[in-house]
Amino acid sequence: MTELAAFRTAVETCGLKASGRPDLVLVAADRPCVAAGLFTRNRVQAAPVLYDRQVLARNRTGIRAVLINSGIANACTGPQGLEDARTLARTVEAELGLPPDSVLVMSTGVIGPRLPVERMQAGIRRAAGRLAPGGWRAAAEGMMTTDTHPKLARARAGEATVLGLAKGAGMIHPDMATMLALILTDAALAPDRAQALLTRAVDRSFHAVSVDGDTSTNDTVLLLASGERPVAEDAFEAALTAVCQDLARQIAWDGEGATLRVTIHVRGAPDEAAARAVGRTVATSPLVKTALWGRDPNWGRIVAAAGRSGVPFDPEGVSLRWNGLLLFDGGVPVPFDPEAARASLDRGELVLELRLGDGPGEATVWTCDLSVEYVRFNGEYHT
Amino acid sequence: MTELAAFRTAVETCGLKASGRPDLVLVAADRPCVAAGLFTRNRVQAAPVLYDRQVLARNRTGIRAVLINSGIANACTGPQGLEDARTLARTVEAELGLPPDSVLVMSTGVIGPRLPVERMQAGIRRAAGRLAPGGWRAAAEGMMTTDTHPKLARARAGEATVLGLAKGAGMIHPDMATMLALILTDAALAPDRAQALLTRAVDRSFHAVSVDGDTSTNDTVLLLASGERPVAEDAFEAALTAVCQDLARQIAWDGEGATLRVTIHVRGAPDEAAARAVGRTVATSPLVKTALWGRDPNWGRIVAAAGRSGVPFDPEGVSLRWNGLLLFDGGVPVPFDPEAARASLDRGELVLELRLGDGPGEATVWTCDLSVEYVRFNGEYHT
Repeated sequence: MTELAAFRTAVETCGLKASGRPDLVLVAADRPCVAAGLFTRNRVQAAPVLYDRQVLARNRTGIRAVLINSGIANACTGPQGLEDARTLARTVEAELGLPPDSVLVMSTGVIGPRLPVERMQAGIRRAAGRLAPGGWRAAAEGMMTTDTHPKLARARAGEATVLGLAKGAGMIHPDMATMLALILTDAALAPDRAQALLTRAVDRSFHAVSVDGDTSTNDTVLLLASGERPVAEDAFEAALTAVCQDLARQIAWDGEGATLRVTIHVRGAPDEAAARAVGRTVATSPLVKTALWGRDPNWGRIVAAAGRSGVPFDPEGVSLRWNGLLLFDGGVPVPFDPEAARASLDRGELVLELRLGDGPGEATVWTCDLSVEYVRFNGEYHT
Repeated sequence: MTELAAFRTAVETCGLKASGRPDLVLVAADRPCVAAGLFTRNRVQAAPVLYDRQVLARNRTGIRAVLINSGIANACTGPQGLEDARTLARTVEAELGLPPDSVLVMSTGVIGPRLPVERMQAGIRRAAGRLAPGGWRAAAEGMMTTDTHPKLARARAGEATVLGLAKGAGMIHPDMATMLALILTDAALAPDRAQALLTRAVDRSFHAVSVDGDTSTNDTVLLLASGERPVAEDAFEAALTAVCQDLARQIAWDGEGATLRVTIHVRGAPDEAAARAVGRTVATSPLVKTALWGRDPNWGRIVAAAGRSGVPFDPEGVSLRWNGLLLFDGGVPVPFDPEAARASLDRGELVLELRLGDGPGEATVWTCDLSVEYVRFNGEYHT
């Protein structure tokens, strides 16, 4: 039987990207889906974010399609941008014979310009005629902007499937490091549980990835559940979290110029949120990231970044391991072999284990290093 | 009459720096000074910070000397580091015949190693025999680590003088971007007023500079007032703020590899603290800083950084000027000539004027761009 049989996809090219690559993705469900969404906390929110929030406030049980475009973000476009998002959603509704408020939209790309609405409407018409089962990889490719590869992840929860498509690349990034993710499942979920489970899974995945600072104008994670398969909530949450974490790692490690895949385990914090805050501060520190690029086991920068995270801890209780090698313990550095520390990075992977004390809080955060190529790339990318 | 006649200085070399440059600065007052201090808020605090906080808790009216060393930070050195700081302060007290708890210490440099206490004690003995009036530039040079030039500023408040010495370089930086500043004045100040005025001046100066993230393990600002000159508090505060802002700009614009001196005026915020928070978020954004290095008038990155600062504002009320050129107004971009925007940077200076709305809050923040040279420098600097 077909995986996620309720969903069909189509990918089109409307000329939104200089590269001429596919830029429009339509995902449609043959029955009403329970939907949950999480959106950027940036004060400047793009039109598709504003639109989806309006739709989900009215309809969390009857979503039938998601329209995604890459190339233009439809951000900082004012009331016209919101009208454009509405026009495109209504075009999908008209083409597929769907009721009002049943289509969500996502955009990523350059900030400022209007979407070419007429060209996209023509693209929607073509896509509507070509919807077909599967096609997940092509759909993930159609979401890409500066990603170097499409991002897909799947997991099973009993009889149900959880499939995730995402775009975004960690670290310093043009077009605000927008992160979009669409999670599809055939599980049966109540709308309030869907939102609660998505929130917790995102805290443990996309919120644990270091991008620059916080969130872009367009960041969006949507979950659509078509409901054919009953699931145990625990099993579903585990599968959803696994899919989100897999996508989050792919985003963290797809930084332009990244040379090191970094996992930071923080333990012994007062609680999980505090552990994550420490991990994120370390993961976003340019000082730490440039040291990692330089293959420098610079425990001083790592410990000092933890110290400015706002989380209380006693420095005398701190220890740090670098690919298993103890660098720092009891508030002071430990003699270690720097060459061994550097050599442990030969496979391009680093696991940092940072213990803050004896608290119960743990979290894992993923990031990459900061190279000269990042700066060159971002300095040369113009609006 | 000699400027700041109560103070004398001496500079020595104790071999703390690979460069062999001066690394020990002794500043002594011939009478008890009122003292105020502000220290890093990092949870990991270096021994000199812990020591000075202890001294100032006991003695805010009888400080007689400050010992500054560069090259080694005496941070992450545990109880031994605190004992070393105490030993050095006591050596100064013994050499100059001062009472206990009358000497403060400041350290900057590499994190981890112990200070070479005996070599420094020998340096203190030599310095004690060579104290002389003036010598401010040599003192500022003795504080330098990766600074490209010594940082000095002065202002007058009626008959009184305010003189500041500082070290630190903005942006991504080795040894945690430590910022040390010593402000000397002959003004007569009550201790509680000295602390209050220093706090406000630092908020408007050193806290308005973008370094990486927040504060290093060693950041310290000390004010010593020898008390010969009565002053009007308003005039003194203006002079103190001017000196701190001058030093803060010098730090912000002394980033390794910096090619652009950037001033960000934020207006129309709910209050001054909110305006500064927005300015700091823009000033620390790697996305904004790499765009500035690329001479890209990337209003999208600037507005989006403001949006994630945590300060509430209505995007429709936002406007942005770039060296006077309007780029963004009423929540949407304004047509402008990108070549004119780029050409306006030819003198290496950029003034950004970001208006958020109609609130009364304003603040100014200083920063520089983020170049490939920064990353190279920081990636290649090893512990």
